Amino acid sequence: MEYPSKLLEEAVMALSRLPGIGRKSALRLALFLLRSDADVSRDLSNAVGRLRSEMKYCVRCSNMSDEEVCRICASSSRRRGIICVVADFRDVMAIEQTRQFTGTYHVLGGLISPMDGVGPEKLRIDQLERRIVEEHVQEILIALSATMEGDTTAFYLAKRLEPYKLTLSTISRGIAIGGELEYADELTLGRSIQHRVPFGSQGY
Amino acid sequence: MEYPSKLLEEAVMALSRLPGIGRKSALRLALFLLRSDADVSRDLSNAVGRLRSEMKYCVRCSNMSDEEVCRICASSSRRRGIICVVADFRDVMAIEQTRQFTGTYHVLGGLISPMDGVGPEKLRIDQLERRIVEEHVQEILIALSATMEGDTTAFYLAKRLEPYKLTLSTISRGIAIGGELEYADELTLGRSIQHRVPFGSQGY
Repeated sequence: MEYPSKLLEEAVMALSRLPGIGRKSALRLALFLLRSDADVSRDLSNAVGRLRSEMKYCVRCSNMSDEEVCRICASSSRRRGIICVVADFRDVMAIEQTRQFTGTYHVLGGLISPMDGVGPEKLRIDQLERRIVEEHVQEILIALSATMEGDTTAFYLAKRLEPYKLTLSTISRGIAIGGELEYADELTLGRSIQHRVPFGSQGY
Repeated sequence: MEYPSKLLEEAVMALSRLPGIGRKSALRLALFLLRSDADVSRDLSNAVGRLRSEMKYCVRCSNMSDEEVCRICASSSRRRGIICVVADFRDVMAIEQTRQFTGTYHVLGGLISPMDGVGPEKLRIDQLERRIVEEHVQEILIALSATMEGDTTAFYLAKRLEPYKLTLSTISRGIAIGGELEYADELTLGRSIQHRVPFGSQGY
């Protein structure tokens, strides 16, 4: 495709590097920016420019933050003795959305994945151990994806944290709320039968 | 949704103003930018910032351009006597893609649409008339969308350009190539019967 302007071409190229945005969508977006008010482009340009270069990460939990220590770690209303271990800061956002967890987080920065060359030394496990000691942690809630990598990482963590004599817990697996039995995969259904819970205990 | 960082929130807000991108997609894009190399964000920020503020429009045809006069108007290999009238610079790109038109363009900047308060005075018709005289134009090819607004504008143009004794032509309408008769709407099918052409004349 030939573009009538170098500026347009550059914008299309830059936009089409975003995931899920191909050349055609990128062109549509660029033409939208050209047609709309100047502040739409200016705000977008500023926000994108600052996002990557000015973003800070909490020195304690590695979550995204505007300050040295993130809002959650700095909050006096969060319980100190329990840390929820997650892979990514997206998981922090997902769990925060539920409003069901009142402790603090620890972002590992990934999952153990030998296929991708990610060993335990690339994750922030040393920092987690330090926090367990410093913050007198009693419980670690492991909230990792129900995938091979998530399970491997959870298993590794459980082994490695054994000496600290903590309560280790993990988020429950099972049929999603609103999910229909006949469409559930057999592994999930099988596990949710294995790990059945007393009727009435799940708050419905 | 609560964001862990003001910077992230601003980026999500700015991205979600783009058409077809909601909050969730905007968040996904922002997180992608955070994870990827710094130059992805920097290039995007620069390209978007410059696109709107530095874009020029050809003084002759109003197409997007990097210079005073656009590449097409400045090219010595384009025929001078025929101007293709389009609504938008996107249409120029679409027609250029076909490589079937060798004249120059004139971008009207919209279509007559009383419903949206767009009258002929808001379109660049005066400039077109000036070009017809100055450039000794013999043919005007009207390439507007096959909509109510397109047809109205074409009709208006035909009336207004009558005094210049030009050849007025319009792009042909009919069944799209590869289109199946049974799925064609009756209006298109009806018109393509009305405006039937000698067998063999359409280059197949």
